[in-house]
Amino acid sequence: MTPPTGKVIGNITISVDGYAAGLNQTEERPFGDDGGDGSGGKLHAWMFDDPEANRAEVDELAAYSAVIMGRNMFGPVRGEWDRPWNGWWGDDPVFHAPAYHFVTSGIESALAQAREAAGDGDVSILGGADTINQYLAAGLVDELRLHNVPLTLGAGARLFEGVPPLALEQVKSRASKSVTHLTYVPVKE
Amino acid sequence: MTPPTGKVIGNITISVDGYAAGLNQTEERPFGDDGGDGSGGKLHAWMFDDPEANRAEVDELAAYSAVIMGRNMFGPVRGEWDRPWNGWWGDDPVFHAPAYHFVTSGIESALAQAREAAGDGDVSILGGADTINQYLAAGLVDELRLHNVPLTLGAGARLFEGVPPLALEQVKSRASKSVTHLTYVPVKE
Repeated sequence: MTPPTGKVIGNITISVDGYAAGLNQTEERPFGDDGGDGSGGKLHAWMFDDPEANRAEVDELAAYSAVIMGRNMFGPVRGEWDRPWNGWWGDDPVFHAPAYHFVTSGIESALAQAREAAGDGDVSILGGADTINQYLAAGLVDELRLHNVPLTLGAGARLFEGVPPLALEQVKSRASKSVTHLTYVPVKE
Repeated sequence: MTPPTGKVIGNITISVDGYAAGLNQTEERPFGDDGGDGSGGKLHAWMFDDPEANRAEVDELAAYSAVIMGRNMFGPVRGEWDRPWNGWWGDDPVFHAPAYHFVTSGIESALAQAREAAGDGDVSILGGADTINQYLAAGLVDELRLHNVPLTLGAGARLFEGVPPLALEQVKSRASKSVTHLTYVPVKE
């Protein structure tokens, strides 16, 4: 068996103070106290209000062969699944991947399954912060793509929380009007 | 008396996870667990290793009429002053301002004194994180200039810690090889 050739890419939008979601997430307000109505709209305005200015990064978000996301990102149910649920994302989710993988059996297991599905392609870890943090802490992320938006949340789900210190190489930094796109590669020391 | 025309500018170098210094700061290691020898060298390499690529930002750091800094940034003494001390900065400190102001009598008092000394010029708040956080929380910062360097510290003195949510306008984002310079203006809502 040849080693996988695709990359494992963490990709997430964060506030300037590093939060991917605010406190007090609920079913109706999946991003909690996000500076807006809880929809994450202010965090993700760069995708929706200004897609042409951010075309490369919007396209990259969909350019993967398999997706890993934390269960909390898929839906609001926290205990046993007690209802039908298609995720936050409605009938036509923005994720058109051949395979979703949820982190319920451990991060290594989810990644192994995603790699299998991805073949030579990339595996994207699309959040939330806690899921990406687990992969970062385990040294399993090849590339981290951040979309740094000009607001602070003050509290919530923070990227890098609990992650040991990392040496990074800045491989991309591109600004558009209301966001700075930053890509880092963890450096093995 | 006319109102002051200069700006109040927070200017600080932070890791990707928002820390301006690591844990365990000591007299010999003023930046603590900073990924290097405690001198802050990795955080501030952009100034010293690559000054030409970052000329505008290096020059801006010195382009103020008065400086405010937290006492902890000036020197290691935490209780009563018990010795002669010229600061961390040696006989020829990089701060060639006409007036230094230390935050010992409260942030409003320090700012009032600095504004007086600055005349129409800008007042720079050069750190540390805790001092800038106090001014941000009080709504007294007109412009925040961050130098975002590709490493994480995982713990330490974190910018925005305890600061209520802020709406910001991204007025500058410029990358050089090993740093991204980001300037934000707090938006009054």
